[in-house]
Amino acid sequence: MIPRYSRPQMVSIWAEQSRFRIWFEIEAHATDKLAELGVVPKEAAAKVWEKARDATFDVARIDEIEREVKHDVIAFLTHLGEIVGPEARFLHQGMTSSDVLDTCLAVQLSRAADLLIADVDEVLAALRKRAIEHKYTPTIGRSHGIHAEPVTFGLKLAQAYAEFSRNRERLVAARKEIATCAISGAVGTFANIDPAVEAYVAEKMGLAVEPVSTQVIPRDRHAMFFATLGVVASSIERLATEIRHLQRTEVLEAEEFFSAGQKGSSAMPHKRNPVLTENLTGLARIVRSAVTPALENVALWHERDISHSSVERMIGPDATVTLDFALARLAGVIDKLVIYPENMRRNLDRLGGLHNSQRVLLALTQAGASREDSYRLVQRNAMKVWRGEGDFLAFLKADPEVSAKLSDAALEAMFDEGYHFKHVDTIFGRVFGAAT
Amino acid sequence: MIPRYSRPQMVSIWAEQSRFRIWFEIEAHATDKLAELGVVPKEAAAKVWEKARDATFDVARIDEIEREVKHDVIAFLTHLGEIVGPEARFLHQGMTSSDVLDTCLAVQLSRAADLLIADVDEVLAALRKRAIEHKYTPTIGRSHGIHAEPVTFGLKLAQAYAEFSRNRERLVAARKEIATCAISGAVGTFANIDPAVEAYVAEKMGLAVEPVSTQVIPRDRHAMFFATLGVVASSIERLATEIRHLQRTEVLEAEEFFSAGQKGSSAMPHKRNPVLTENLTGLARIVRSAVTPALENVALWHERDISHSSVERMIGPDATVTLDFALARLAGVIDKLVIYPENMRRNLDRLGGLHNSQRVLLALTQAGASREDSYRLVQRNAMKVWRGEGDFLAFLKADPEVSAKLSDAALEAMFDEGYHFKHVDTIFGRVFGAAT
Amino acid sequence: MIPRYSRPQMVSIWAEQSRFRIWFEIEAHATDKLAELGVVPKEAAAKVWEKARDATFDVARIDEIEREVKHDVIAFLTHLGEIVGPEARFLHQGMTSSDVLDTCLAVQLSRAADLLIADVDEVLAALRKRAIEHKYTPTIGRSHGIHAEPVTFGLKLAQAYAEFSRNRERLVAARKEIATCAISGAVGTFANIDPAVEAYVAEKMGLAVEPVSTQVIPRDRHAMFFATLGVVASSIERLATEIRHLQRTEVLEAEEFFSAGQKGSSAMPHKRNPVLTENLTGLARIVRSAVTPALENVALWHERDISHSSVERMIGPDATVTLDFALARLAGVIDKLVIYPENMRRNLDRLGGLHNSQRVLLALTQAGASREDSYRLVQRNAMKVWRGEGDFLAFLKADPEVSAKLSDAALEAMFDEGYHFKHVDTIFGRVFGAAT
Amino acid sequence: MIPRYSRPQMVSIWAEQSRFRIWFEIEAHATDKLAELGVVPKEAAAKVWEKARDATFDVARIDEIEREVKHDVIAFLTHLGEIVGPEARFLHQGMTSSDVLDTCLAVQLSRAADLLIADVDEVLAALRKRAIEHKYTPTIGRSHGIHAEPVTFGLKLAQAYAEFSRNRERLVAARKEIATCAISGAVGTFANIDPAVEAYVAEKMGLAVEPVSTQVIPRDRHAMFFATLGVVASSIERLATEIRHLQRTEVLEAEEFFSAGQKGSSAMPHKRNPVLTENLTGLARIVRSAVTPALENVALWHERDISHSSVERMIGPDATVTLDFALARLAGVIDKLVIYPENMRRNLDRLGGLHNSQRVLLALTQAGASREDSYRLVQRNAMKVWRGEGDFLAFLKADPEVSAKLSDAALEAMFDEGYHFKHVDTIFGRVFGAAT
Repeated sequence: MIPRYSRPQMVSIWAEQSRFRIWFEIEAHATDKLAELGVVPKEAAAKVWEKARDATFDVARIDEIEREVKHDVIAFLTHLGEIVGPEARFLHQGMTSSDVLDTCLAVQLSRAADLLIADVDEVLAALRKRAIEHKYTPTIGRSHGIHAEPVTFGLKLAQAYAEFSRNRERLVAARKEIATCAISGAVGTFANIDPAVEAYVAEKMGLAVEPVSTQVIPRDRHAMFFATLGVVASSIERLATEIRHLQRTEVLEAEEFFSAGQKGSSAMPHKRNPVLTENLTGLARIVRSAVTPALENVALWHERDISHSSVERMIGPDATVTLDFALARLAGVIDKLVIYPENMRRNLDRLGGLHNSQRVLLALTQAGASREDSYRLVQRNAMKVWRGEGDFLAFLKADPEVSAKLSDAALEAMFDEGYHFKHVDTIFGRVFGAAT
Repeated sequence: MIPRYSRPQMVSIWAEQSRFRIWFEIEAHATDKLAELGVVPKEAAAKVWEKARDATFDVARIDEIEREVKHDVIAFLTHLGEIVGPEARFLHQGMTSSDVLDTCLAVQLSRAADLLIADVDEVLAALRKRAIEHKYTPTIGRSHGIHAEPVTFGLKLAQAYAEFSRNRERLVAARKEIATCAISGAVGTFANIDPAVEAYVAEKMGLAVEPVSTQVIPRDRHAMFFATLGVVASSIERLATEIRHLQRTEVLEAEEFFSAGQKGSSAMPHKRNPVLTENLTGLARIVRSAVTPALENVALWHERDISHSSVERMIGPDATVTLDFALARLAGVIDKLVIYPENMRRNLDRLGGLHNSQRVLLALTQAGASREDSYRLVQRNAMKVWRGEGDFLAFLKADPEVSAKLSDAALEAMFDEGYHFKHVDTIFGRVFGAAT
Repeated sequence: MIPRYSRPQMVSIWAEQSRFRIWFEIEAHATDKLAELGVVPKEAAAKVWEKARDATFDVARIDEIEREVKHDVIAFLTHLGEIVGPEARFLHQGMTSSDVLDTCLAVQLSRAADLLIADVDEVLAALRKRAIEHKYTPTIGRSHGIHAEPVTFGLKLAQAYAEFSRNRERLVAARKEIATCAISGAVGTFANIDPAVEAYVAEKMGLAVEPVSTQVIPRDRHAMFFATLGVVASSIERLATEIRHLQRTEVLEAEEFFSAGQKGSSAMPHKRNPVLTENLTGLARIVRSAVTPALENVALWHERDISHSSVERMIGPDATVTLDFALARLAGVIDKLVIYPENMRRNLDRLGGLHNSQRVLLALTQAGASREDSYRLVQRNAMKVWRGEGDFLAFLKADPEVSAKLSDAALEAMFDEGYHFKHVDTIFGRVFGAAT
Repeated sequence: MIPRYSRPQMVSIWAEQSRFRIWFEIEAHATDKLAELGVVPKEAAAKVWEKARDATFDVARIDEIEREVKHDVIAFLTHLGEIVGPEARFLHQGMTSSDVLDTCLAVQLSRAADLLIADVDEVLAALRKRAIEHKYTPTIGRSHGIHAEPVTFGLKLAQAYAEFSRNRERLVAARKEIATCAISGAVGTFANIDPAVEAYVAEKMGLAVEPVSTQVIPRDRHAMFFATLGVVASSIERLATEIRHLQRTEVLEAEEFFSAGQKGSSAMPHKRNPVLTENLTGLARIVRSAVTPALENVALWHERDISHSSVERMIGPDATVTLDFALARLAGVIDKLVIYPENMRRNLDRLGGLHNSQRVLLALTQAGASREDSYRLVQRNAMKVWRGEGDFLAFLKADPEVSAKLSDAALEAMFDEGYHFKHVDTIFGRVFGAAT
């Protein structure tokens, strides 16, 4: 997480002040319930809120204490005691640090997930808008980077829309994975704290109860969360790569918006580069790099070890902040993408209708030729076109083995572009629903 | 995937004969629907089934054809043509290779997922059986590898049960991710094939319809699938690591079953090593290693490139076969695990009740001491026990600052083990439901 | 490792028979030295060679024994005993399985490295040949996929040559990393075997002595080895990606050789796809996927655990066989690459000399304009060219702010292509040495 | 990179001010050489130094400019122009941004490598000191976590010393990989800049000349660099894992230094946890997570794309700062490690000499028993010891099949511990040289 690739709202989730605020809320809610259960005095619980509800925690002071006790939650509790006074001794009764830390992380990751879902919604909105706008803009479909058959630019975006819709569902599932609360004590037995406290804090913090914890919330949950971010990042890379390809000088079917005053190169003033989508490609690598350490974090020793902690202190902010930034950047790129239908047309026409080769093949088989023979006939004429020797339709008409099966009129009819787009509306219906 | 770590049922899913069989079914079902739609003669569709329904495909012959045409689906279709005769020219009408390949992969991965889910059920059954058996077997809970507070061995297994229950749900979701059928033609436009064919084949093959494909089924689906396998593998590693720890010579609370005739070391005849769980730790690394290439496969170029193909030819079998083997091995390890309650007791007693330190701490705060003072008092007595200087309870009684707050009787009462297990049944209820 | 992506020589290194042969040699050489040291009878050592030197080991029989003893080296030794007779009891004296296994792996990886180095030499030879052939073939250099300034096709290949030269050095270093022999006994103390045996076997097997082992050879060596393969694979991906780009329909500056009879698509007979380089892109992902498990293998417990073993049984063959195949395929692709200088020329000319923008910029600064003003002047004329409004040179001449600084003749002189190639020979000298 | 896991010297390498300072030096040195070549006025070159040699660059101002031009090097040059005045137009003549950026990164990574090498030297010094101190401290060697045969604690540390010596060599090689300078212009052709400038700047900045660049320095170099950091991190994990194991309550052969005032747990005052080495385990995962994105960075498009940039902005600081911190922490842990020889002795004696099983096995084979029979005899007596039924030596003496081969005196002689340590000095000689 570096400022260049960060947005303030996501960053604030991970700020130290936010973390201490959540820690405080967990402790204070727990104390409320403990008071209700008669474990601590009701006045003490009230005093905790009264003194600290609006406090700003002194991060430097907490750091100072931590340097001595070498334990961050104890340092925080000591500082909270300085704010609350003697009643602070009733805080954290029967709890262990991880009750606070892991429940806090659940809150932070849930909030981060909420932002990410909202980000995906922005991407979806931009994709939908541009897809509908270009529902019938013809462009060549490419497999292997080679011209295949016509598609529409709207179809390309519809595919991306469907992919990000899946990513939205995955993020919702990932959020559910990590939104649990554990207040179960030193080894998860509730020996020193009633399970009712856990239920109460969970409800207050908007979390589900973790069915069984072992001081820590099990890390398979977090592994699944970060793995999901890795998948979303890979989808970003896919769409970014598409745009980078489309902006290539020889293709130039679409281009990132290039603002007034922008400079593409320090050396070459003529340059307009797809730097945003290249950047997204790199950011995808960064988000994905959180997946393996998150998987390695699962196998904690016995009831827990603390090896996961340093990992999460880094990948927690890094992966969510970077993904948030990337999704927002992607939404902007799509929304402002400069699209060149005329260049799409020029490229589409470049091979003189060669992309109708399959129709000719099928017609030949329908006319009685074997699949192998049909393939051979079409391929030999197509290869002449690749070699720049002339026009596909003319070659086909002139090939006696072809013309024995297919009349000139029949061949000509196969070069109708509309043929390729007859199901565009069907696909849009599947992706966007009826009214597009 | 190597024989040593493979089981036949999963291996058979990936056999070439299985693949060709699925290819054939996809082609034949599609031809049926095309016949119904009037695109191909009904007799041709019938002839396809008649000739090839029970055929064994000649893998060597297909390989021979592929060496010439350098395209596996064309090679298969050519061979199928040799079996079916002239009517074979009506096969594959309007379809593209990926319609066959990707739908086939969906069938294979779905079947693999079914086996994996069944494997997890075996693990769950073993865990449940042993958990109930040891619901109240006391053992020391360990954080950081250091004695913390008592748990029961059943609780350890209950945690694992909950984790594998989550993994079961994840596998069900992952199966859904990849169980889609695409028969949409060269660039996904259905230009040369009616969407009704796709719907028909999907239903016949037990798949959902892919809403929008681009010759290929989008690879974010497969990325999510393999990422999920990586999470399951990490959970295996967690449980395997636990058992490896428990079998350590100094701990020896549980031990893998050591069969008659087994030898632990070529050099040292006294050895009995946790080789199965060590092996599971390594296999987890292998399954996880499929995650990153699966993520890298997402960003195909334009409508598709074929870079994902070689990756999937390897990680498809490797990850599923290895995970299947690992889950089965894990179920066996748990089922036959030799458990030593007497050693658990011996270890639990090793620190002379030091694991009750939290109770004493809480009692001191309840008796009016600040949290910091209470901590200091308990810690200074505990450290003497670590240094081997004597007994925790005796030290506490002899500490005037402690005895000023807590009577000897009160201190003694804090060394009651049952205190730690009063919520075991609550947790079992959460994990296993009521009747355990 | 699957047959499709395997070559026989590398596969044979990993064959079971090869492994057993190496095991035998290690055991037999060790026994020779033990005989010399007087630990075992000389006749016994001689008998071992006499009986087993030319033996074919019965893999099925060894498997059968292993099913009982659950230990592969013991199974082998038992089978070897069946071949050698009673003198076999003098085999493996003071050795432990890992002495055999790890030294064998060192031999296998060294041999694999030798093949990989030879493969890289093939790649280098192909690159050198084609680079010299196209030393002065002009083509546009592209940054961000956008036209930048002219280069030559030979320069592109020279860059690749330099990169694979580095990879060759890295492979030599990686080979050295893993080419060590350990015969140090159960925990590496030589308690039951003289260090002289290790030195003798090392020399016989062409390895260095491992300075300190702990039953196993430390796995940081293997991690470095597989990490190096990952780097080589990434270089393959880079060059493969370049070719995939060059073969794009709109670019078509180079093309994989397309053989007679080859078919590009089952649906579209006109297709010629860069399937070999796409395949290499996928294979690079597979080779790279070995890096993380190899890194995870380093942290074995205490003197050793066996978690690395299953990982190496898979990544050992998989990574080396796949990389060997990929390098050989790459060499072939380069060697037979169809290169289209005329298309390079056409693309180079597409932007009407816009790639000279930097020269104009520099001339303007030399003529007294500030860098910022110069940039602005050139950029505003360049952008008109991008918009298709006309010719760069004409615009520059017509721009009064430019013409105030630079005469028409001066501007025209800046559109000389040779200007860009004056240091090609310098660079070739750096890469290939003097005589190219 | 977060403050908690950072040290100031490494952080300062990556500070923005440091980066701008290096950029300035590269530009100013290049201008000096250009002046010498007569391309720019000597006065201009002198003025650059005069005005900016001691300047503090205004990061906020540069950011402000970048927001408009969207290009960081142009923003810097504009700001530098504000400092230098009109002569600034002679800066960056014929150079491209990457000449500055990549050469700067080379300087930063070289400096980082220097610190990492110094860190490893600290680790080596600590290991050497403690190894010599405990050269002959007996402890049980463990394979699979199970007692094997005796080693000395010094041998354990000698192994780690040898491993970190290899890591030192790898870091030196990795430093060499990335310490190159490229000043080759927009596409690496030196079209607008003489190669002599590159040679001059390289020498001034302490770098080698990059033989062939393509606007960028090729990223296989950086991939190798970060892969090497990943290997070093894995070695840290290995040693950290060893210490975590040794500190386990049941083992307690060594313990991290626990300072006065330190608190191990918020709930359990008795706890002393190996938190530093657990932390190192997590940090190793973080450093390793840089390897895959660095490998993915290699395959830039054509002469370059900019996808690597965002990755390196993050992993550059993150991986080096984290590894620096981890190495320093490791050196401290080793240096202050509390070692308990008496506990090592207690554990060593726990199995009553079972670790001599191999000697008995070998003696039986020497006495004429087959390997299989010998194994069976020793194993059956050893298993009784595992079952807690009594003493190994006594069982052996009482076993008629054993005593038929080996006298009581012969058996007793096999329980001599010194036997295991006779080659400790040999191994120390290999690792540390003669005088230890």
